[in-house]
Amino acid sequence: MPAEFDLIRRWFTADEWPANVPLGVGDDAALLDVPAGQRLAVTTDTLVCGVHFLPDVSAHDLGHKALAVNLSDLAAMGAQPAWVLLALTLPSATDDAWLEAFSAGFLALARAHDVALVGGDTTQGPLSITVTAMGFVLPGAALTRAGAQPGDGIYVTGTLGDAALALHLLHEGRIDAIAGGSELRRRLQCPTPRIGAGLALRGLASAAIDVSDGLAADLGHILERSGVGALLHADALPRSPAFRACHSEPDTEAWQFALSGGDDYELLFTLPLARESELAARFAALDVGCTRIGEIVADAGLRVLDRDGRELPLARRGYEHFRNGA
Amino acid sequence: MPAEFDLIRRWFTADEWPANVPLGVGDDAALLDVPAGQRLAVTTDTLVCGVHFLPDVSAHDLGHKALAVNLSDLAAMGAQPAWVLLALTLPSATDDAWLEAFSAGFLALARAHDVALVGGDTTQGPLSITVTAMGFVLPGAALTRAGAQPGDGIYVTGTLGDAALALHLLHEGRIDAIAGGSELRRRLQCPTPRIGAGLALRGLASAAIDVSDGLAADLGHILERSGVGALLHADALPRSPAFRACHSEPDTEAWQFALSGGDDYELLFTLPLARESELAARFAALDVGCTRIGEIVADAGLRVLDRDGRELPLARRGYEHFRNGA
Repeated sequence: MPAEFDLIRRWFTADEWPANVPLGVGDDAALLDVPAGQRLAVTTDTLVCGVHFLPDVSAHDLGHKALAVNLSDLAAMGAQPAWVLLALTLPSATDDAWLEAFSAGFLALARAHDVALVGGDTTQGPLSITVTAMGFVLPGAALTRAGAQPGDGIYVTGTLGDAALALHLLHEGRIDAIAGGSELRRRLQCPTPRIGAGLALRGLASAAIDVSDGLAADLGHILERSGVGALLHADALPRSPAFRACHSEPDTEAWQFALSGGDDYELLFTLPLARESELAARFAALDVGCTRIGEIVADAGLRVLDRDGRELPLARRGYEHFRNGA
Repeated sequence: MPAEFDLIRRWFTADEWPANVPLGVGDDAALLDVPAGQRLAVTTDTLVCGVHFLPDVSAHDLGHKALAVNLSDLAAMGAQPAWVLLALTLPSATDDAWLEAFSAGFLALARAHDVALVGGDTTQGPLSITVTAMGFVLPGAALTRAGAQPGDGIYVTGTLGDAALALHLLHEGRIDAIAGGSELRRRLQCPTPRIGAGLALRGLASAAIDVSDGLAADLGHILERSGVGALLHADALPRSPAFRACHSEPDTEAWQFALSGGDDYELLFTLPLARESELAARFAALDVGCTRIGEIVADAGLRVLDRDGRELPLARRGYEHFRNGA
């Protein structure tokens, strides 16, 4: 690998640019046209080898995930993704096969959402990936963390705890031995950004965030910004068939995966109960479901009740990443 | 340092947001308003410890440089900088003093150019900094690499080779012992993005780029994109007083610093000779000068002549970074 290598151009450049990209990869900066009347939503996230992913992860999955976690942030704003920049730091020993798989995973997800890679940087060093994603949202239509009101229902898309359980099973070396192990691994390594759900929630959700640090921690951000509290019903937390196969009767460990495990990239949101039928109608057209898991209350703080109304302890409030184990 | 730390908010968040930032740091994405009729210019660059800077560099200078190299890319497009995102990967041993100095260096340069830090990410890992910078440019007014024409003059702002000479002296351990050493060090570690010059060149330069990889390599990008060649006059290459103090009579080594040394972050540009008086008039108001160093020719390739008309060898075509030494 040469000291100055232009990998972005070799592996990631499009043949044609969309009309809103007057100048793409290959100059000092990309030139972009935000549609008139739209607001730009911008987010950036870094994945570091050994912290956010294991060194032996599939390059294809890693390319997918580096983009997915950023698109998930746009989804949580109700934004329509449009453009992305990729800053890739690679060890000198990186080979073409790895780069081909990484770019294939990255670009497949980009194409699926009509996202154009418009620029980036490649440097040599310890493996690390920083993606900056940009999208559009109409003024006033963005979903923020700040609008939850007492009496609002709390909802989540998909299922919770799969990624944390997968990480736990990976560390124990038994993910390939159990039923549903490959599905759990896919949930950890190849998450689905809930872009359609985010778009469907515009004008409906009072607050929204994506579950990256864990349900309790991310709900905590909504509560803090909205100045409210919440009551969650542990029994209502949606768990996947693969999760249930491992934990048919939820024990304390299972609750902690669902409550505090990170990396699920589901959308967590609130809205007035009176609008729940609208929510159901909008989600009927999507490929992901949603579940009411609790309600917003006026008193600060987060409480979690089991099916008998007993309060469950919140052992961990945030995701501790790969380095710290599950 | 906690596993999940929100350094961006603690060290980098503004008290007030500009009117074009309806939502800044603290949600899933920033929300930004591009002025009507303007185009967005976006660039991203990563600095990796041990590759782009030495581990013992001043944190204040590093904060400055991480932003400066990105603003330099916007300058080379003729864009007016507006917003920036900071993705910071820090070793677990990073202390508050380092962060305070880094943010002070970063924010001082941001404030000097009315640039708002609107978002970012902080992760734990080997020290690395990725900045994404955004600015505005009117459609049709952007400076690209693609418009150089045979007969155009080739110009550069400021002086060349200072950063490469500084790196060489640092490696030899004698930068503090020589006259002008501190000025050379400043040029390497605390470069000035030529934003005013870039704005002044709008509607005037036929092509532009910033000198990050070295004059020969970066001019090569203009030649490639414009489909032309170039003749440079080595004797015309602008050298600073500190550079001249080290190399009063330019030898082969000195030429190579000026021709192939990276990290100068001067603007390199072309324009029709007939417009040189306009150039002089516009630069009269700036705090940096510019020098004609050669001309664009129809035949492909780059040739460099000494004062006697002999062709100089181009030993190195690109910057090899800190890891490879000077």
